[in-house]
Amino acid sequence: MVEIISIKTHGQGLYEITERVRQLLVASGVKEGLCSLLIQHTSASLTIQENADPSAQHDLENWLNRLVPEGDAIYTHVFEGRDDMPAHIKAALTATTLSLPVKGGQILLGTWQGIFCWEHRHGSQLRQIAVHIG
Amino acid sequence: MVEIISIKTHGQGLYEITERVRQLLVASGVKEGLCSLLIQHTSASLTIQENADPSAQHDLENWLNRLVPEGDAIYTHVFEGRDDMPAHIKAALTATTLSLPVKGGQILLGTWQGIFCWEHRHGSQLRQIAVHIG
Amino acid sequence: MVEIISIKTHGQGLYEITERVRQLLVASGVKEGLCSLLIQHTSASLTIQENADPSAQHDLENWLNRLVPEGDAIYTHVFEGRDDMPAHIKAALTATTLSLPVKGGQILLGTWQGIFCWEHRHGSQLRQIAVHIG
Repeated sequence: MVEIISIKTHGQGLYEITERVRQLLVASGVKEGLCSLLIQHTSASLTIQENADPSAQHDLENWLNRLVPEGDAIYTHVFEGRDDMPAHIKAALTATTLSLPVKGGQILLGTWQGIFCWEHRHGSQLRQIAVHIG
Repeated sequence: MVEIISIKTHGQGLYEITERVRQLLVASGVKEGLCSLLIQHTSASLTIQENADPSAQHDLENWLNRLVPEGDAIYTHVFEGRDDMPAHIKAALTATTLSLPVKGGQILLGTWQGIFCWEHRHGSQLRQIAVHIG
Repeated sequence: MVEIISIKTHGQGLYEITERVRQLLVASGVKEGLCSLLIQHTSASLTIQENADPSAQHDLENWLNRLVPEGDAIYTHVFEGRDDMPAHIKAALTATTLSLPVKGGQILLGTWQGIFCWEHRHGSQLRQIAVHIG
């Protein structure tokens, strides 16, 4: 089964999609197999991170913003906005695709793991994630 | 087939699991397909790196420790220890899942490639990696 | 189906392989499924990036070269050349494997996404990418 998850983002940060992926898995009827995700954008990415404590996500965001700041004199690709080139770099440093083993009808995430869409731009965006379950 | 590889780590560094994954592949009987890995933790990660010369792994570890130091004033997520937030960031910058084509009963790694569990914390940890072969 | 894509690189940069992967997909006859890639090297990597504007690729390259410079005193793994250890680090920070959902006989890439081999060394190299389609 291949489906698209659409998610509306409103600025930088981690948006959890674990439950959305689980719903697709249930709908697929697959009990054992692989669930693969591809985010169809180059200024947002995917990550598996701690879903328990928001402070971890907050620090992750701040740290990456400091590593890849806006307004860096090295950028020549600037006509799509100050946040565009940093977003491409952040996407390259994190994940665009994920592969998740499934057993007993469950995605085998660890206890504290959640699946997140990581928005790297400031404005509202409609992000699409292609999901293959087989 | 979905199995869990458990590995005991004792401090930061790269722990090779190539042989463990190969053993699962042999047990599965799969000759052509895909072998997918997910590490079930957010303070350790997966990487495919050079397995021939330990100095490359040593430099990789030192470089990443310098990029993501402990005690950074930017961190607010500190109650799980000084090495916890850096570990989450390192996990985000490296890989949590891997997908490896299989042919002729072999994982198609390059000559110098090994699969590693990358431990980002100091203490001893039991790390689990879910492996799907199909 | 498992095949190898070979690509000759001539120095650092992004080499688009989207069309090569598409040709394999057509040859496979697979209409719905998963296309997985593994680059068989530890000094080059894979990335999905913007394929429309070369300035984004140029900035990505320059930014990463500044983050991971040659000649860093931290390196001890130096006998394979000044560009070797930075190449391993860059490979660890980017992707070695990718998983791409396929539907309607198409890889479900976004409008502006291309698949690239990211060469991190200066000299000419023959790079091999294992591709599983199933």
